[in-house]
Amino acid sequence: MQQKIKLTIAYDGTRYGGWQIQPNAPSIQDHIQKELATLLKEPVLVIGSGRTDAGVHALGQVAHFVAPTTLNLYRLQHSLNALLPQDIRIKKMEIAPEDFHSRFSAKSKIYHYYLHLNPVKNPFTKLYSLYVPYKVDLSLLKLGTEHFIGTHNFMSFTNEVRDDQDCVRTIYRLDMVQTDDGVRLEFEGDGFLYKMVRNIVGTLLDVARKKITPDAIKTILAAQDRKMGCSAVPPQGLFLVEVFY
Amino acid sequence: MQQKIKLTIAYDGTRYGGWQIQPNAPSIQDHIQKELATLLKEPVLVIGSGRTDAGVHALGQVAHFVAPTTLNLYRLQHSLNALLPQDIRIKKMEIAPEDFHSRFSAKSKIYHYYLHLNPVKNPFTKLYSLYVPYKVDLSLLKLGTEHFIGTHNFMSFTNEVRDDQDCVRTIYRLDMVQTDDGVRLEFEGDGFLYKMVRNIVGTLLDVARKKITPDAIKTILAAQDRKMGCSAVPPQGLFLVEVFY
Repeated sequence: MQQKIKLTIAYDGTRYGGWQIQPNAPSIQDHIQKELATLLKEPVLVIGSGRTDAGVHALGQVAHFVAPTTLNLYRLQHSLNALLPQDIRIKKMEIAPEDFHSRFSAKSKIYHYYLHLNPVKNPFTKLYSLYVPYKVDLSLLKLGTEHFIGTHNFMSFTNEVRDDQDCVRTIYRLDMVQTDDGVRLEFEGDGFLYKMVRNIVGTLLDVARKKITPDAIKTILAAQDRKMGCSAVPPQGLFLVEVFY
Repeated sequence: MQQKIKLTIAYDGTRYGGWQIQPNAPSIQDHIQKELATLLKEPVLVIGSGRTDAGVHALGQVAHFVAPTTLNLYRLQHSLNALLPQDIRIKKMEIAPEDFHSRFSAKSKIYHYYLHLNPVKNPFTKLYSLYVPYKVDLSLLKLGTEHFIGTHNFMSFTNEVRDDQDCVRTIYRLDMVQTDDGVRLEFEGDGFLYKMVRNIVGTLLDVARKKITPDAIKTILAAQDRKMGCSAVPPQGLFLVEVFY
Protein backbone atom coordinates (compact mmCIF):
# COMPACT_ATOMS: atom_id res chain seq x y z
CA MET A 1 0.00 0.00 0.00
CA GLN A 2 1.30 3.45 -0.93
CA GLN A 3 2.05 5.85 1.90
CA LYS A 4 2.74 9.59 2.05
CA ILE A 5 5.84 10.14 4.19
CA LYS A 6 6.77 13.47 5.82
CA LEU A 7 10.44 14.24 6.53
CA THR A 8 11.82 16.87 8.90
CA ILE A 9 15.38 17.71 7.93
CA ALA A 10 18.30 19.69 9.37
CA TYR A 11 21.25 20.66 7.22
CA ASP A 12 24.34 22.78 7.26
CA GLY A 13 24.04 24.51 3.89
CA THR A 14 27.70 25.58 3.70
CA ARG A 15 28.77 22.95 1.15
CA TYR A 16 25.62 22.92 -0.95
CA GLY A 17 24.18 24.74 -3.93
CA GLY A 18 20.86 24.88 -2.05
CA TRP A 19 17.90 22.61 -1.35
CA GLN A 20 16.85 22.19 -4.95
CA ILE A 21 18.40 19.90 -7.56
CA GLN A 22 20.44 21.91 -10.03
CA PRO A 23 23.22 21.38 -12.52
CA ASN A 24 26.84 21.89 -11.39
CA ALA A 25 26.28 21.97 -7.61
CA PRO A 26 25.41 19.36 -4.99
CA SER A 27 21.94 19.84 -3.50
CA ILE A 28 20.26 18.51 -0.39
CA GLN A 29 17.23 17.28 -2.33
CA ASP A 30 19.45 15.31 -4.67
CA HIS A 31 21.32 13.59 -1.83
CA ILE A 32 18.09 12.55 -0.10
CA GLN A 33 16.44 11.35 -3.33
CA LYS A 34 19.44 9.29 -4.36
CA GLU A 35 19.88 7.58 -1.00
CA LEU A 36 16.14 6.93 -0.65
CA ALA A 37 16.14 5.38 -4.13
CA THR A 38 19.03 3.14 -3.08
CA LEU A 39 17.16 1.99 0.01
CA LEU A 40 13.74 1.60 -1.63
CA LYS A 41 15.22 0.12 -4.82
CA GLU A 42 13.19 2.48 -7.01
CA PRO A 43 13.27 6.14 -8.03
CA VAL A 44 11.70 8.55 -5.53
CA LEU A 45 10.64 12.18 -5.87
CA VAL A 46 11.27 14.23 -2.71
CA ILE A 47 9.35 17.52 -2.60
CA GLY A 48 10.44 20.25 -0.18
CA SER A 49 8.35 22.97 1.50
CA GLY A 50 10.36 25.47 -0.51
CA ARG A 51 13.83 25.95 -1.85
CA THR A 52 16.60 27.33 0.32
CA ASP A 53 19.47 29.05 -1.49
CA ALA A 54 23.13 28.07 -1.64
CA GLY A 55 24.65 28.45 1.81
CA VAL A 56 21.33 28.75 3.69
CA HIS A 57 20.90 26.35 6.63
CA ALA A 58 17.88 24.48 7.98
CA LEU A 59 16.92 23.27 11.41
CA GLY A 60 13.49 22.07 10.30
CA GLN A 61 13.01 21.92 6.53
CA VAL A 62 10.04 19.70 5.65
CA ALA A 63 9.68 17.45 2.61
CA HIS A 64 7.49 14.57 1.52
CA PHE A 65 7.61 11.58 -0.78
CA VAL A 66 5.29 8.76 -1.71
CA ALA A 67 6.51 5.37 -0.52
CA PRO A 68 5.62 2.43 -2.79
CA THR A 69 4.81 0.10 0.12
CA THR A 70 4.37 0.17 3.88
CA LEU A 71 7.77 0.90 5.39
CA ASN A 72 9.45 0.44 8.74
CA LEU A 73 10.06 4.17 9.22
CA TYR A 74 12.28 3.77 12.25
CA ARG A 75 14.66 1.56 10.28
CA LEU A 76 14.42 3.64 7.12
CA GLN A 77 15.29 6.87 8.98
CA HIS A 78 18.29 5.17 10.55
CA SER A 79 19.51 3.71 7.25
CA LEU A 80 18.99 6.98 5.40
CA ASN A 81 21.00 8.92 8.00
CA ALA A 82 23.74 6.31 7.75
CA LEU A 83 24.00 6.89 3.98
CA LEU A 84 23.62 10.69 3.97
CA PRO A 85 26.55 13.07 4.53
CA GLN A 86 26.81 14.10 8.20
CA ASP A 87 25.77 17.67 7.40
CA ILE A 88 22.31 16.48 6.34
CA ARG A 89 20.21 14.75 9.01
CA ILE A 90 16.68 13.37 8.86
CA LYS A 91 15.33 14.45 12.25
CA LYS A 92 11.91 12.89 11.87
CA MET A 93 10.17 10.55 9.46
CA GLU A 94 6.43 10.04 9.87
CA ILE A 95 3.31 8.96 8.03
CA ALA A 96 1.33 11.94 6.69
CA PRO A 97 -2.29 12.12 5.56
CA GLU A 98 -2.80 11.14 1.93
CA ASP A 99 -3.45 14.76 0.87
CA PHE A 100 -0.42 16.20 2.69
CA HIS A 101 1.88 18.32 0.54
CA SER A 102 5.03 19.81 2.08
CA ARG A 103 4.68 22.99 0.02
CA PHE A 104 0.97 23.53 -0.55
CA SER A 105 -0.19 22.44 2.91
CA ALA A 106 2.27 24.74 4.72
CA LYS A 107 0.43 27.33 6.84
CA SER A 108 3.43 29.31 8.09
CA LYS A 109 7.20 29.27 8.45
CA ILE A 110 9.84 30.56 10.80
CA TYR A 111 13.17 31.88 9.53
CA HIS A 112 16.04 33.24 11.66
CA TYR A 113 18.82 35.54 10.49
CA TYR A 114 21.94 36.01 12.66
CA LEU A 115 23.76 39.36 12.69
CA HIS A 116 27.24 39.30 14.27
CA LEU A 117 27.77 42.80 15.68
CA ASN A 118 30.68 42.21 18.05
CA PRO A 119 33.79 43.61 16.30
CA VAL A 120 35.77 40.46 17.27
CA LYS A 121 34.51 37.56 15.16
CA ASN A 122 33.34 34.53 17.09
CA PRO A 123 35.43 31.63 15.67
CA PHE A 124 32.48 29.25 16.10
CA THR A 125 29.85 31.18 14.15
CA LYS A 126 31.66 32.52 11.08
CA LEU A 127 29.72 30.10 8.84
CA TYR A 128 26.43 30.81 10.60
CA SER A 129 26.07 34.58 10.84
CA LEU A 130 26.69 37.80 8.94
CA TYR A 131 29.59 39.81 10.33
CA VAL A 132 28.55 43.48 10.29
CA PRO A 133 31.72 45.59 10.07
CA TYR A 134 30.05 48.95 10.75
CA LYS A 135 28.26 50.50 13.75
CA VAL A 136 24.52 49.92 13.88
CA ASP A 137 21.76 51.53 15.92
CA LEU A 138 19.61 48.67 17.18
CA SER A 139 16.76 50.94 18.29
CA LEU A 140 16.43 52.15 14.69
CA LEU A 141 16.59 48.55 13.45
CA LYS A 142 13.80 47.67 15.88
CA LEU A 143 11.70 50.60 14.61
CA GLY A 144 12.28 49.35 11.08
CA THR A 145 11.00 45.84 11.85
CA GLU A 146 7.59 47.26 12.81
CA HIS A 147 6.92 48.43 9.26
CA PHE A 148 7.21 44.87 7.95
CA ILE A 149 4.83 43.25 10.40
CA GLY A 150 1.36 42.62 8.99
CA THR A 151 0.02 42.04 5.49
CA HIS A 152 1.85 43.81 2.65
CA ASN A 153 2.68 43.44 -1.01
CA PHE A 154 6.37 42.46 -0.82
CA MET A 155 7.19 42.87 -4.53
CA SER A 156 9.95 45.37 -3.66
CA PHE A 157 11.56 42.67 -1.52
CA THR A 158 11.85 39.73 -3.87
CA ASN A 159 14.25 39.01 -6.72
CA GLU A 160 12.12 37.06 -9.15
CA VAL A 161 8.49 37.79 -9.85
CA ARG A 162 6.52 35.69 -12.28
CA ASP A 163 3.90 37.65 -14.25
CA ASP A 164 0.98 36.07 -12.47
CA GLN A 165 2.51 36.03 -9.01
CA ASP A 166 0.68 37.38 -5.99
CA CYS A 167 3.27 39.12 -3.81
CA VAL A 168 1.01 39.72 -0.81
CA ARG A 169 2.30 37.97 2.31
CA THR A 170 1.67 38.34 6.03
CA ILE A 171 4.47 38.57 8.58
CA TYR A 172 3.00 37.67 11.97
CA ARG A 173 6.13 38.32 13.95
CA LEU A 174 9.52 39.95 13.38
CA ASP A 175 11.44 39.87 16.65
CA MET A 176 14.94 41.07 17.43
CA VAL A 177 16.53 38.72 20.00
CA GLN A 178 19.88 39.36 21.72
CA THR A 179 22.59 36.71 21.13
CA ASP A 180 26.16 36.34 22.45
CA ASP A 181 27.63 38.33 19.57
CA GLY A 182 24.77 40.40 18.21
CA VAL A 183 21.12 39.82 17.41
CA ARG A 184 18.94 37.23 15.74
CA LEU A 185 15.99 38.42 13.63
CA GLU A 186 13.09 35.99 13.95
CA PHE A 187 10.57 35.99 11.09
CA GLU A 188 7.26 34.17 11.27
CA GLY A 189 4.93 34.49 8.33
CA ASP A 190 2.40 32.72 6.12
CA GLY A 191 4.97 32.46 3.36
CA PHE A 192 8.07 34.14 2.02
CA LEU A 193 8.93 35.16 -1.54
CA TYR A 194 12.27 34.36 -3.15
CA LYS A 195 15.07 36.16 -1.20
CA MET A 196 12.44 38.10 0.79
CA VAL A 197 14.01 37.52 4.22
CA ARG A 198 17.50 38.43 3.00
CA ASN A 199 16.21 41.56 1.25
CA ILE A 200 14.33 42.66 4.37
CA VAL A 201 17.41 42.12 6.56
CA GLY A 202 19.50 44.14 4.07
CA THR A 203 16.98 46.98 4.30
CA LEU A 204 16.93 46.82 8.11
CA LEU A 205 20.72 47.10 8.11
CA ASP A 206 20.46 50.20 5.92
CA VAL A 207 18.09 51.65 8.52
CA ALA A 208 20.38 50.61 11.38
CA ARG A 209 23.37 52.38 9.82
CA LYS A 210 21.26 55.44 8.92
CA LYS A 211 21.48 55.10 5.14
CA ILE A 212 17.67 55.34 5.11
CA THR A 213 15.09 56.23 7.76
CA PRO A 214 12.73 53.63 9.24
CA ASP A 215 9.85 55.46 7.52
CA ALA A 216 11.47 54.95 4.11
CA ILE A 217 10.37 51.30 4.40
CA LYS A 218 6.77 52.41 3.95
CA THR A 219 7.69 54.10 0.68
CA ILE A 220 9.65 51.09 -0.56
CA LEU A 221 6.78 48.71 0.27
CA ALA A 222 4.27 51.00 -1.45
CA ALA A 223 6.40 51.28 -4.61
CA GLN A 224 6.05 47.53 -5.31
CA ASP A 225 9.23 47.79 -7.33
CA ARG A 226 12.34 45.70 -6.82
CA LYS A 227 14.56 48.54 -7.98
CA MET A 228 13.55 50.47 -4.85
CA GLY A 229 14.87 47.73 -2.56
CA CYS A 230 18.37 47.34 -1.17
CA SER A 231 20.66 44.40 -1.82
CA ALA A 232 20.18 41.07 -0.08
CA VAL A 233 22.42 40.03 2.79
CA PRO A 234 24.53 36.87 2.23
CA PRO A 235 23.05 33.41 2.83
CA GLN A 236 25.17 32.07 5.71
CA GLY A 237 23.25 33.91 8.44
CA LEU A 238 19.90 32.43 7.39
CA PHE A 239 18.18 29.40 8.94
CA LEU A 240 14.85 27.85 7.97
CA VAL A 241 13.74 26.95 11.49
CA GLU A 242 10.27 25.45 11.27
CA VAL A 243 7.37 24.85 8.89
CA PHE A 244 3.86 24.69 10.35
CA TYR A 245 0.90 22.78 8.84
CA MET B 1 58.31 51.07 29.56
CA GLN B 2 57.56 47.34 29.87
CA GLN B 3 53.92 46.36 30.27
CA LYS B 4 52.21 43.14 31.29
CA ILE B 5 49.43 42.42 28.79
CA LYS B 6 46.50 40.10 29.45
CA LEU B 7 44.83 38.34 26.50
CA THR B 8 41.39 36.71 26.47
CA ILE B 9 41.20 34.22 23.63
CA ALA B 10 38.54 32.12 21.89
CA TYR B 11 39.50 29.24 19.63
CA ASP B 12 38.00 26.34 17.80
CA GLY B 13 40.43 23.57 18.77
CA THR B 14 39.44 21.20 15.94
CA ARG B 15 42.52 21.80 13.77
CA TYR B 16 45.08 22.14 16.55
CA GLY B 17 47.35 19.91 18.60
CA GLY B 18 46.30 21.89 21.68
CA TRP B 19 47.13 25.20 23.33
CA GLN B 20 50.76 24.41 24.04
CA ILE B 21 53.66 24.50 21.59
CA GLN B 22 54.68 21.00 20.59
CA PRO B 23 56.57 19.25 17.82
CA ASN B 24 54.61 17.94 14.82
CA ALA B 25 51.31 19.74 15.42
CA PRO B 26 50.12 23.33 15.10
CA SER B 27 49.31 24.95 18.45
CA ILE B 28 47.36 28.04 19.43
CA GLN B 29 50.21 29.36 21.60
CA ASP B 30 52.62 29.08 18.69
CA HIS B 31 50.35 30.99 16.31
CA ILE B 32 49.86 33.85 18.78
CA GLN B 33 53.55 34.03 19.69
CA LYS B 34 54.66 34.11 16.08
CA GLU B 35 52.22 36.80 14.98
CA LEU B 36 52.91 38.91 18.07
CA ALA B 37 56.63 38.65 17.32
CA THR B 38 55.97 39.80 13.76
CA LEU B 39 54.01 42.82 15.00
CA LEU B 40 56.35 43.74 17.87
CA LYS B 41 59.47 42.96 15.84
CA GLU B 42 60.97 40.89 18.65
CA PRO B 43 60.44 37.43 20.17
CA VAL B 44 57.58 37.19 22.68
CA LEU B 45 56.72 34.50 25.22
CA VAL B 46 52.96 33.98 25.60
CA ILE B 47 51.97 32.10 28.77
CA GLY B 48 48.52 30.52 29.03
CA SER B 49 46.39 29.86 32.12
CA GLY B 50 46.85 26.17 31.38
CA ARG B 51 47.13 23.87 28.43
CA THR B 52 44.08 22.61 26.61
CA ASP B 53 44.46 19.32 24.73
CA ALA B 54 44.22 18.64 21.03
CA GLY B 55 40.64 19.23 19.89
CA VAL B 56 39.53 21.10 23.04
CA HIS B 57 37.90 24.50 22.43
CA ALA B 58 38.03 27.77 24.35
CA LEU B 59 35.61 30.65 24.73
CA GLY B 60 37.78 32.44 27.29
CA GLN B 61 41.32 31.11 27.57
CA VAL B 62 43.57 33.68 29.24
CA ALA B 63 47.26 34.30 28.52
CA HIS B 64 49.80 37.02 29.21
CA PHE B 65 52.99 38.39 27.76
CA VAL B 66 55.42 41.17 28.58
CA ALA B 67 55.39 43.97 26.03
CA PRO B 68 58.73 45.70 25.48
CA THR B 69 57.19 49.18 25.26
CA THR B 70 53.88 50.94 25.75
CA LEU B 71 51.54 49.72 23.04
CA ASN B 72 48.35 50.87 21.38
CA LEU B 73 46.36 47.83 22.48
CA TYR B 74 43.32 48.61 20.36
CA ARG B 75 45.47 48.63 17.23
CA LEU B 76 47.54 45.65 18.30
CA GLN B 77 44.45 43.50 18.95
CA HIS B 78 43.08 44.41 15.55
CA SER B 79 46.37 43.69 13.76
CA LEU B 80 46.86 40.41 15.62
CA ASN B 81 43.37 39.21 14.71
CA ALA B 82 44.04 40.15 11.09
CA LEU B 83 47.15 37.93 11.06
CA LEU B 84 45.78 34.99 13.07
CA PRO B 85 43.75 32.18 11.48
CA GLN B 86 40.00 32.83 11.77
CA ASP B 87 39.56 29.98 14.26
CA ILE B 88 41.69 31.84 16.83
CA ARG B 89 40.39 35.22 18.00
CA ILE B 90 41.76 37.65 20.57
CA LYS B 91 38.57 38.77 22.32
CA LYS B 92 40.24 41.21 24.69
CA MET B 93 43.66 42.74 25.19
CA GLU B 94 44.25 44.77 28.34
CA ILE B 95 46.98 46.04 30.63
CA ALA B 96 47.43 43.79 33.67
CA PRO B 97 49.12 44.56 36.99
CA GLU B 98 52.87 43.95 36.97
CA ASP B 99 52.54 40.83 39.12
CA PHE B 100 49.73 39.28 37.05
CA HIS B 101 50.38 35.72 35.86
CA SER B 102 47.77 33.98 33.71
CA ARG B 103 48.47 30.63 35.38
CA PHE B 104 49.52 31.39 38.95
CA SER B 105 47.08 34.26 39.56
CA ALA B 106 44.06 32.21 38.40
CA LYS B 107 41.54 31.73 41.22
CA SER B 108 39.05 29.51 39.44
CA LYS B 109 37.96 28.24 36.05
CA ILE B 110 34.79 27.20 34.27
CA TYR B 111 34.73 24.28 31.83
CA HIS B 112 31.71 23.02 29.90
CA TYR B 113 31.31 19.56 28.39
CA TYR B 114 28.53 18.90 25.82
CA LEU B 115 26.83 15.49 25.67
CA HIS B 116 24.72 14.87 22.55
CA LEU B 117 21.98 12.44 23.63
CA ASN B 118 19.48 12.84 20.79
CA PRO B 119 19.86 9.73 18.58
CA VAL B 120 19.81 11.94 15.44
CA LYS B 121 23.10 13.86 15.27
CA ASN B 122 22.76 17.63 15.01
CA PRO B 123 24.72 18.55 11.84
CA PHE B 124 25.89 21.81 13.46
CA THR B 125 27.43 20.39 16.65
CA LYS B 126 29.30 17.28 15.57
CA LEU B 127 32.66 18.99 16.20
CA TYR B 128 31.46 20.47 19.50
CA SER B 129 29.85 17.67 21.48
CA LEU B 130 30.19 13.98 22.30
CA TYR B 131 27.58 11.85 20.60
CA VAL B 132 26.41 9.23 23.14
CA PRO B 133 25.14 6.22 21.20
CA TYR B 134 23.56 4.42 24.20
CA LYS B 135 20.65 5.14 26.54
CA VAL B 136 21.53 7.13 29.64
CA ASP B 137 19.63 7.80 32.86
CA LEU B 138 20.04 11.51 33.56
CA SER B 139 18.76 11.26 37.14
CA LEU B 140 21.60 8.82 37.89
CA LEU B 141 24.07 11.15 36.15
CA LYS B 142 22.81 14.02 38.30
CA LEU B 143 23.25 11.91 41.46
CA GLY B 144 26.79 11.14 40.34
CA THR B 145 27.71 14.80 39.95
CA GLU B 146 27.01 15.40 43.64
CA HIS B 147 29.89 13.15 44.70
CA PHE B 148 32.39 15.36 42.86
CA ILE B 149 31.29 18.68 44.31
CA GLY B 150 33.51 19.91 47.15
CA THR B 151 37.17 19.35 48.05
CA HIS B 152 38.65 15.99 47.11
CA ASN B 153 41.92 14.36 46.15
CA PHE B 154 41.37 13.82 42.40
CA MET B 155 44.37 11.53 41.80
CA SER B 156 42.05 8.82 40.42
CA PHE B 157 40.85 11.32 37.83
CA THR B 158 44.05 12.56 36.23
CA ASN B 159 46.37 10.95 33.71
CA GLU B 160 49.76 12.30 34.72
CA VAL B 161 50.84 12.81 38.30
CA ARG B 162 54.25 14.21 39.13
CA ASP B 163 55.80 12.77 42.29
CA ASP B 164 55.41 15.96 44.25
CA GLN B 165 51.99 16.93 42.93
CA ASP B 166 49.15 17.87 45.21
CA CYS B 167 45.98 16.40 43.67
CA VAL B 168 43.53 18.13 46.01
CA ARG B 169 41.14 20.39 44.16
CA THR B 170 37.78 21.97 44.94
CA ILE B 171 34.82 21.80 42.59
CA TYR B 172 32.42 24.59 43.55
CA ARG B 173 29.72 23.73 41.06
CA LEU B 174 28.92 20.86 38.72
CA ASP B 175 25.61 21.58 37.02
CA MET B 176 23.74 19.61 34.42
CA VAL B 177 21.99 22.00 32.01
CA GLN B 178 19.52 20.94 29.30
CA THR B 179 20.51 21.79 25.71
CA ASP B 180 18.72 21.29 22.37
CA ASP B 181 20.24 17.84 21.88
CA GLY B 182 21.25 16.66 25.33
CA VAL B 183 22.96 18.21 28.32
CA ARG B 184 25.90 20.43 29.12
CA LEU B 185 27.95 19.68 32.25
CA GLU B 186 29.21 22.92 33.79
CA PHE B 187 32.28 22.64 36.00
CA GLU B 188 33.51 25.48 38.17
CA GLY B 189 36.52 24.82 40.39
CA ASP B 190 39.71 26.29 41.82
CA GLY B 191 41.77 24.28 39.37
CA PHE B 192 41.68 21.14 37.27
CA LEU B 193 44.32 18.41 36.88
CA TYR B 194 45.38 17.06 33.49
CA LYS B 195 42.35 15.38 31.83
CA MET B 196 40.36 15.71 35.06
CA VAL B 197 37.17 17.06 33.47
CA ARG B 198 37.19 14.44 30.71
CA ASN B 199 37.82 11.62 33.22
CA ILE B 200 34.98 12.82 35.44
CA VAL B 201 32.59 13.03 32.47
CA GLY B 202 33.62 9.48 31.44
CA THR B 203 32.82 8.26 34.95
CA LEU B 204 29.49 10.07 34.99
CA LEU B 205 28.57 8.39 31.70
CA ASP B 206 29.42 5.01 33.27
CA VAL B 207 27.01 5.89 36.07
CA ALA B 208 24.36 7.09 33.61
CA ARG B 209 24.45 3.81 31.69
CA LYS B 210 24.52 1.76 34.89
CA LYS B 211 28.01 0.30 34.49
CA ILE B 212 28.75 1.57 38.00
CA THR B 213 26.55 3.00 40.77
CA PRO B 214 26.71 6.67 41.78
CA ASP B 215 28.14 5.55 45.13
CA ALA B 216 31.08 3.85 43.40
CA ILE B 217 32.43 7.37 42.77
CA LYS B 218 33.17 7.67 46.50
CA THR B 219 35.28 4.49 46.35
CA ILE B 220 37.13 5.64 43.24
CA LEU B 221 37.89 9.04 44.79
CA ALA B 222 39.08 7.41 48.02
CA ALA B 223 41.36 4.96 46.19
CA GLN B 224 43.52 7.83 44.84
CA ASP B 225 44.57 5.50 42.06
CA ARG B 226 44.26 6.22 38.35
CA LYS B 227 43.77 2.54 37.57
CA MET B 228 40.42 2.73 39.38
CA GLY B 229 39.14 5.44 37.04
CA CYS B 230 37.35 5.03 33.76
CA SER B 231 38.60 6.24 30.41
CA ALA B 232 38.40 9.89 29.41
CA VAL B 233 35.76 11.11 26.99
CA PRO B 234 37.05 12.63 23.71
CA PRO B 235 38.15 16.27 23.51
CA GLN B 236 35.64 17.81 21.08
CA GLY B 237 32.87 18.23 23.68
CA LEU B 238 35.08 20.28 26.00
CA PHE B 239 35.20 24.09 26.24
CA LEU B 240 37.35 26.23 28.53
CA VAL B 241 34.77 28.92 29.18
CA GLU B 242 36.24 31.36 31.66
CA VAL B 243 39.23 31.96 33.96
CA PHE B 244 38.68 34.08 37.06
CA TYR B 245 41.38 36.15 38.82
